[in-house]
Amino acid sequence: MITSATFDKADFTPDVLICVDQSGIIDRVISATDSDYQSVKQTAKNQDILHSVKKGSYILPGFTDLHIHAPQWPQAGLALDKPLYEWLNTYTFPLESKFKDLTFAKKVYHSLITELLANGTTTGLFFGTVDTESNLVLAKICAQLGQRAFIGKVAMDNPKQTPTYYRDDSSATAINETENFIKAIFSLQKETGAELTPVVTPRFVPSCTAETLTGLGQLAKKYNLPIQSHCSESNWEDQYALDNFQKRDSQVLDQFGLLTDKAVMAHGTKLTDDDLNLFNHRQTALAHCPISNVYFGNGIARIKKAHHSQVKVGLGTDISGGFSPSIYRNMQQAIMSSQMLVDLKDQSARLTTDNVFYLATIGGAKALHLNSGQIRSGYKADLQIVSDKYFNISIKQPHAIFERLIYHTTKEDIQQVYVSGKLVHNKLGENNG
Amino acid sequence: MITSATFDKADFTPDVLICVDQSGIIDRVISATDSDYQSVKQTAKNQDILHSVKKGSYILPGFTDLHIHAPQWPQAGLALDKPLYEWLNTYTFPLESKFKDLTFAKKVYHSLITELLANGTTTGLFFGTVDTESNLVLAKICAQLGQRAFIGKVAMDNPKQTPTYYRDDSSATAINETENFIKAIFSLQKETGAELTPVVTPRFVPSCTAETLTGLGQLAKKYNLPIQSHCSESNWEDQYALDNFQKRDSQVLDQFGLLTDKAVMAHGTKLTDDDLNLFNHRQTALAHCPISNVYFGNGIARIKKAHHSQVKVGLGTDISGGFSPSIYRNMQQAIMSSQMLVDLKDQSARLTTDNVFYLATIGGAKALHLNSGQIRSGYKADLQIVSDKYFNISIKQPHAIFERLIYHTTKEDIQQVYVSGKLVHNKLGENNG
Ligand SMILES: [Zn+2]
Ligand SMILES: [Zn+2]
Repeated sequence: MITSATFDKADFTPDVLICVDQSGIIDRVISATDSDYQSVKQTAKNQDILHSVKKGSYILPGFTDLHIHAPQWPQAGLALDKPLYEWLNTYTFPLESKFKDLTFAKKVYHSLITELLANGTTTGLFFGTVDTESNLVLAKICAQLGQRAFIGKVAMDNPKQTPTYYRDDSSATAINETENFIKAIFSLQKETGAELTPVVTPRFVPSCTAETLTGLGQLAKKYNLPIQSHCSESNWEDQYALDNFQKRDSQVLDQFGLLTDKAVMAHGTKLTDDDLNLFNHRQTALAHCPISNVYFGNGIARIKKAHHSQVKVGLGTDISGGFSPSIYRNMQQAIMSSQMLVDLKDQSARLTTDNVFYLATIGGAKALHLNSGQIRSGYKADLQIVSDKYFNISIKQPHAIFERLIYHTTKEDIQQVYVSGKLVHNKLGENNG
Repeated sequence: MITSATFDKADFTPDVLICVDQSGIIDRVISATDSDYQSVKQTAKNQDILHSVKKGSYILPGFTDLHIHAPQWPQAGLALDKPLYEWLNTYTFPLESKFKDLTFAKKVYHSLITELLANGTTTGLFFGTVDTESNLVLAKICAQLGQRAFIGKVAMDNPKQTPTYYRDDSSATAINETENFIKAIFSLQKETGAELTPVVTPRFVPSCTAETLTGLGQLAKKYNLPIQSHCSESNWEDQYALDNFQKRDSQVLDQFGLLTDKAVMAHGTKLTDDDLNLFNHRQTALAHCPISNVYFGNGIARIKKAHHSQVKVGLGTDISGGFSPSIYRNMQQAIMSSQMLVDLKDQSARLTTDNVFYLATIGGAKALHLNSGQIRSGYKADLQIVSDKYFNISIKQPHAIFERLIYHTTKEDIQQVYVSGKLVHNKLGENNG
């Protein structure tokens, strides 16, 4: 079993019993040195509820992906050589507008959620589309496939920055549809018992009118809900706030009540020290999307700095600004991007494998106020069983195994995934379930 | 079928017949519009020699990996947060010295070559170890598993830069053992008919005495053989040449006759314009290892600049300075690293998916003077059959399919691999072979 202990250290414990209660919460983690290890194991065996993990396989917490544009899944990996503005208008908005077709939405979302679970992502924070109905399709599929999901109806109504064929037709629509969507998710949640949460989602400052930003801030407060948006992703976005509000992007979001302790802002590659302090004061979290930032970020987010400024940080794939649905890939890129920052200017910027594992597990959970991301008593049993593909020929020292899992795991190595104790992905077949 | 046409353009042709002759060379590529397409197809079917590719799968050329340290495979992904000098002395040299144990060597090399083939790499350029016998084990495994291999016995005899437990004990040993290895590979080649080539391999300038560098240059000339080494990988290596030879690293290599038109130099992150001109004059090739460079390169190699300076460039994984055995991963990182160069200073630095596909196929083949890397008449039938894993939900336009394959292919998507027409990796089972 491997679980993050602190930002700087992952704990590796061989031979544990992870006891999960009926509600999907980890009741106890019993190590081989505990006195009742053998008796508990035997009891579980007798009751036929003992699931064993093969030699060379390890149990890790499931990951939280803090930034996914669900409707962009069909274009993951395409047109990444285009600038953000062109990428949005020529590729992305036309694609997102297609999700009014709910059959198309169902097919794409089923593929995406299946893929995310298979990659070990047990919690997702999603941007949907402008259209409420297609967002409900996404929510139903998450409920059906068992992924814990935070979903937002995208609000975007600024006629200057959004195309006629894909926008809320007024500020009133943007706000009312957001509220309708919130209520619909509450109903769906009651009906299915699924772990679904609506999220207030202004696309980003440029795509919304001031009226809409105001209304969304009020909705988030009224329902005490999470908020998601983008903040200082690129030079262009950063400059937009300065030109139009004579303020930093973070300050604009703050002015409209959108930087709360339940807010998760994507990217932040251009955040200044002052911006980071504001994030810290508001206890707003940052979703670091290292693959996406390579293409659209005009720079590398200062994650070590953000963490040391006591800003909550987790990881996001940013499908499809980032091409990969895998948090493993994003952990790898977070390390590599930080390494480039080291070369450029800041020796202390380097992220280790332990650091990025923390971000993918504890960091993501803290951003969403979840008791998940750790394999400890009282936490949700979000687990992935991963096999070390080069076990036979490689070094068996615990930290070497840990590093190998971070660098080499692909979805083919992920044997099983559990969300709140429920098996949601299984490559092992019935007998080993 | 997808094959690179030029540095800037990959050709996508649906519905072709690729006719391979008995010697493993592509005889003809017949497109659906050719007059005898139907008759040739029917004849092949009648003779039961028609292999068809399923819908959503594509035939690509196999890749050439221009830089692999075979004995470092067991530590791929480990200790990458250490500086080069420490990484070599604390981790790498102790590991490489273990290959005197030929049972260990056999186990590791079998794992590595299997893995490379499964990742679509049909030609590899390998650094072995100092020990001749273990390098012959590597050669035999390549012969047995069917990978085309260029292999070097590593020469390193500078007592100041190499540990006592792992070095050639004199310059005479370094040179004589290299010659013994060359002859042994020639014998093995004759015996097995395998595509094996010995490569003159000074580890890098710091690890060799001037006497050894001289002798190796002469050996390469005597046998007309390829040469491989490292050049200007890092600030440290670059500075070593200046301090010890009062020359650029490239000039030191050149002075000893090691920059030939059959030489392949790894990394070159620090190559100046003058260095690149020297590479061009000598027609020496560059092995770009983008993942490795993130960790050890202190910067990003200027690949677009090198290509436009008419330097031959291909890709290398640099196992284990780079953690991934996949050329796909290195194509992705080459694009991403170039994108960071764009952000830093050079708008024209960006590599496209078409560019990196060229490097992985034509670029690598040119570096090794092989008629491979293209699916065209007269070229070796090095092929990989790859399935587009998101075919069902994604855009079907040819360039979108191509980009998706470059960004999303993992070894699990690679159905079959052929080297010179011989099936060397097969996930489809007998009936579809
Ligand atoms: Zn985004
Ligand atoms: Zn190397």
